[in-house]
Amino acid sequence: MDLRVGVIGTGAIGEDHIRRLTNVITGVKVAAISDINAVKAKRIADKFGAKFYNTGEEVIEAPEVDAIVIASWDPTHAQYVIESIKAGKFVFCEKPLATSADDCKRIVQAEIVGGKQLVQVGFMRRYDRGYGQIKSVIENGEIGAPLILHCVHRNRIPGPKHTTEMNIKNSVIHEIDVLRWLLGEDYKTAQVLMPKCSSLSENGLQDPQIVLLETQSGIRIDIESFVNCQYGYDVQCEVVGETGTVRLPDPANVVMRSSGARSYEIFPDWMDRFVEAYDAELRQWVDAVKEGALKGPTAWDGYVACITSDACSEAREKGTIVSIFIPECPAFYK
Amino acid sequence: MDLRVGVIGTGAIGEDHIRRLTNVITGVKVAAISDINAVKAKRIADKFGAKFYNTGEEVIEAPEVDAIVIASWDPTHAQYVIESIKAGKFVFCEKPLATSADDCKRIVQAEIVGGKQLVQVGFMRRYDRGYGQIKSVIENGEIGAPLILHCVHRNRIPGPKHTTEMNIKNSVIHEIDVLRWLLGEDYKTAQVLMPKCSSLSENGLQDPQIVLLETQSGIRIDIESFVNCQYGYDVQCEVVGETGTVRLPDPANVVMRSSGARSYEIFPDWMDRFVEAYDAELRQWVDAVKEGALKGPTAWDGYVACITSDACSEAREKGTIVSIFIPECPAFYK
Amino acid sequence: MDLRVGVIGTGAIGEDHIRRLTNVITGVKVAAISDINAVKAKRIADKFGAKFYNTGEEVIEAPEVDAIVIASWDPTHAQYVIESIKAGKFVFCEKPLATSADDCKRIVQAEIVGGKQLVQVGFMRRYDRGYGQIKSVIENGEIGAPLILHCVHRNRIPGPKHTTEMNIKNSVIHEIDVLRWLLGEDYKTAQVLMPKCSSLSENGLQDPQIVLLETQSGIRIDIESFVNCQYGYDVQCEVVGETGTVRLPDPANVVMRSSGARSYEIFPDWMDRFVEAYDAELRQWVDAVKEGALKGPTAWDGYVACITSDACSEAREKGTIVSIFIPECPAFYK
Amino acid sequence: MDLRVGVIGTGAIGEDHIRRLTNVITGVKVAAISDINAVKAKRIADKFGAKFYNTGEEVIEAPEVDAIVIASWDPTHAQYVIESIKAGKFVFCEKPLATSADDCKRIVQAEIVGGKQLVQVGFMRRYDRGYGQIKSVIENGEIGAPLILHCVHRNRIPGPKHTTEMNIKNSVIHEIDVLRWLLGEDYKTAQVLMPKCSSLSENGLQDPQIVLLETQSGIRIDIESFVNCQYGYDVQCEVVGETGTVRLPDPANVVMRSSGARSYEIFPDWMDRFVEAYDAELRQWVDAVKEGALKGPTAWDGYVACITSDACSEAREKGTIVSIFIPECPAFYK
Repeated sequence: MDLRVGVIGTGAIGEDHIRRLTNVITGVKVAAISDINAVKAKRIADKFGAKFYNTGEEVIEAPEVDAIVIASWDPTHAQYVIESIKAGKFVFCEKPLATSADDCKRIVQAEIVGGKQLVQVGFMRRYDRGYGQIKSVIENGEIGAPLILHCVHRNRIPGPKHTTEMNIKNSVIHEIDVLRWLLGEDYKTAQVLMPKCSSLSENGLQDPQIVLLETQSGIRIDIESFVNCQYGYDVQCEVVGETGTVRLPDPANVVMRSSGARSYEIFPDWMDRFVEAYDAELRQWVDAVKEGALKGPTAWDGYVACITSDACSEAREKGTIVSIFIPECPAFYK
Repeated sequence: MDLRVGVIGTGAIGEDHIRRLTNVITGVKVAAISDINAVKAKRIADKFGAKFYNTGEEVIEAPEVDAIVIASWDPTHAQYVIESIKAGKFVFCEKPLATSADDCKRIVQAEIVGGKQLVQVGFMRRYDRGYGQIKSVIENGEIGAPLILHCVHRNRIPGPKHTTEMNIKNSVIHEIDVLRWLLGEDYKTAQVLMPKCSSLSENGLQDPQIVLLETQSGIRIDIESFVNCQYGYDVQCEVVGETGTVRLPDPANVVMRSSGARSYEIFPDWMDRFVEAYDAELRQWVDAVKEGALKGPTAWDGYVACITSDACSEAREKGTIVSIFIPECPAFYK
Repeated sequence: MDLRVGVIGTGAIGEDHIRRLTNVITGVKVAAISDINAVKAKRIADKFGAKFYNTGEEVIEAPEVDAIVIASWDPTHAQYVIESIKAGKFVFCEKPLATSADDCKRIVQAEIVGGKQLVQVGFMRRYDRGYGQIKSVIENGEIGAPLILHCVHRNRIPGPKHTTEMNIKNSVIHEIDVLRWLLGEDYKTAQVLMPKCSSLSENGLQDPQIVLLETQSGIRIDIESFVNCQYGYDVQCEVVGETGTVRLPDPANVVMRSSGARSYEIFPDWMDRFVEAYDAELRQWVDAVKEGALKGPTAWDGYVACITSDACSEAREKGTIVSIFIPECPAFYK
Repeated sequence: MDLRVGVIGTGAIGEDHIRRLTNVITGVKVAAISDINAVKAKRIADKFGAKFYNTGEEVIEAPEVDAIVIASWDPTHAQYVIESIKAGKFVFCEKPLATSADDCKRIVQAEIVGGKQLVQVGFMRRYDRGYGQIKSVIENGEIGAPLILHCVHRNRIPGPKHTTEMNIKNSVIHEIDVLRWLLGEDYKTAQVLMPKCSSLSENGLQDPQIVLLETQSGIRIDIESFVNCQYGYDVQCEVVGETGTVRLPDPANVVMRSSGARSYEIFPDWMDRFVEAYDAELRQWVDAVKEGALKGPTAWDGYVACITSDACSEAREKGTIVSIFIPECPAFYK
């Protein structure tokens, strides 16, 4: 029996998820769709054989919808997630879970009141093969206890409305979640260094940036965020342990020898880089929903990521080291 | 509407295809199953909700079966393929298409008489991302005209009944097909060099071997086949063109620095190495069947591969250079 | 006519320089030797056909000595350098130039008073091929203006008397000099992060450490110093520019495929890693001395490195960001 | 006391050796020089403070000359080597030792009659670090017994007078010597494959070529020789053993990320690629001469290489597999 999913939001990522749920993942179909752009949403609904609704709330309440995928405008995430919880339906929400820590907290509280974990947040890097291998290496003790992490997150060019704050809130938030997952501990302090700005940067964007995080046990993390690096989409992560290091590989592309050099391509954007992770993320979510027990990033993870990225933003604005206060994790989420 | 597939043969690869058609690929379900081992076939049929049949012929004729997948014992391939053609059903046949060139020829003739291309052969390397990139590089003229190909096909250890002949018939046949597809031309001569045999080889197996092929335009190919290389499953392919070279990458695994070395894992077997290619192969076959027009390796490709591997075997046995006579490709297959 | 060199100090690096000046570099010979350990110094003098002197001062004043190499205990460097300047002889001094900025300053003043550049400091990384290539890439504009540098300096195990302070004073000082040389500008601020200490660390050593430097134009540098990384001697340097990045290669060692992995060796110690740089450094110094005009790292460079490493030490001790005040470079050194 | 060397031949390689013996290697000086181009030879003799002689014979007999380096036109090698033997002087002869196997044989006989090994042949690859590491890996049993070798020898563009025969006689002869040295055994058969000729090839040059060699124990070797590969100078060598493989690394050049690719430079010519090997070769020859006992490639090695390359040429001309008959190695050379 196919899982019937309602999708709220048919922008780039929303439409891609609809395609994925229809063509790539088995045992699931998209039953209902809505978007603030009703014309586009209707067209997509027709194309994929789903029913169009005027509002996200109607999608959530629709009887032919078993579970919800939220890919709408960030500021609307919280309300749709809370509605889904009220409706007692599993909900997959694209990151960020909400645009403020307070909203995340309300979601967490609503979920606890509801008594069942229904929310998964779209931190898809946890489903990337490379990060998974790093986690295994750490847990197998192959490099001893982790002490330092060096990370890089570079985009070829920024989106048209990219702001200085978005380096952290949109890009580094992926590292914030996945490194916490790798290490199994929360963060203690944040600091942000602002290197000389690239002369190719426009509209007042301060880019690149370096985020420094300290975990509760004292592991130190540096994350370069550079959204205008020009040459490609590049994500790097090296974990330095007591007896060795492990790092993400570059994606496997054919190796050329020509024009005086040995070379291979670096992907131009994140879609190519993380396509398998997105597929695996929703595939495992569908399976988990059908089994009735989620395994992915929780609302609590979304809340902690939001608190941490808020602290990074504050550190950047003030130019100081900021302490990060993570509330104790409720037993509900352990 | 899901495509309903009947699977003949539930050995390792057959069972894996049933899992793939059920859990990995959308728009398809396994409706019928048979195997010479009826007990196992019944168990799998139950597990995947398919109907069990006593014979492959019954699967082919079953009204609830739209298309056939053949993964039975090699010597049975030809009969099932011909039955499928007679039944007018699309059929995916694991390689080899048949165990003799004559049988392949009979299949080709049956298909031509039937008037429609119904047969696809399971040469999954054409669906590997790396080979696809190599083909693009060649076709885009990025390395000029290809002149030489250096290939390596190594298994960690041979299967329990592996024979000297199987280095060509089971392993190198993958190179025979995929290189012909890369280059767009047939082979002219074959020669086989027999290096000093590994002292770890058992049961009279002559291993490693080197197959030398010459294409009709004079491109030279060397293929090392080593089924007992001990260290892992390793497939390499470098195309040397007039202005540059292109080669397959190693699969992307995390990079360690430990114990005095930088290293990454090489997969132990072909399942891990080519899992994406197998998925893509059947996914595209299902889509093509639904559209009514196949795009993958044809019966003709299976026939040519069989003629070529026969010539290689003859070259190995006689220790001479053997000419390869490929009949003119019928217009039906162009 | 061979240059006649007097060497003060016959510890590990001193003896290696004597061997190098005798066997590896043409146009030079070691004429005089002294060391606090007279027995060892006499033995080495005999072995290499040089004259033994009781004191460094006697070596400096010896009429058969054209130029001086200082490889004695760090606290003695300043006095021997100043004596050499007084004697009007060219002097190569192993790093550090002196153990305090004040002593460096006295050397600089003595040299200016003397009216001729006579001092070169042993920052051999400037002679490493990789760093040289990075400098060319930057100067050719191949990656645009540098914005960020990520550096790693790892030793397999620390020396027996290694202290927390020595991570900066003995190891990172190499980065302090070579990065300033790469970028052509001085530093503005320093900060030191202290990650969780390795459980393999002994005798109170706080290791690893992360040094953060900011240059006067705002370039940001992070340097991991880890003297007990267990797996090998590893120096990494990546320069991130506006349009691309460039990084040091690993040394070229043969590539193995065995035991399920592809791997190559990482050298166990710095002698192997930088042997060509040491050779090139002294070769070019000998040539420059014979031509009468030094080209390598100056006393001023040694002074600036000392001021910077003092600031780093202060930053580590206080746990704060420390401003670095570099005096204006005298015209004498431009 | 410096070794005094006479150099015959001041073409490209001869002049480079004079520079090397003067500026790079200690304990040696160039005392005498001659060349068929007397004007150039005189100029070089003046520049390096050596005496000019009208003929090679005069250089060999000059009392101020301890040992000889021959870098003259290939057809003159034999006569000068034999004269040197007669004079009882150590002689380093650039490869080839002679242009015919008969001449090589006469040299060998002359040397045996003289009763002392005086001749070293300029097969500098034995001094390349990478080949040395491969030899260690084999001898340490790290990959089990060698079974197959895959080699590549590519030049960016051919010299102006390059002929089809020179692919073997000038290029592949390096592999012929160094692989025999790696494996410690002679060759049994040769075969040459002629792939489709590059459309960029001129003047009737048949290029690329593939040389197939079989050793006496049955190890199989394939060597691609491509003198017009356009992209750079590229030497590759992989040894496939029973339990693993080992291969030459690419030279270490800085790694760029720019313009959508990760890349590093491949050297344009052999001078850059093998400069350290040339230095090491002559340095060790000078040391060995001073100690009175050579360790490098002998006249016998030069003879065997010549016999083998003659067989390869014959195999290419006839298009057949050619047996290689190596006389038993005299005890004198063991």
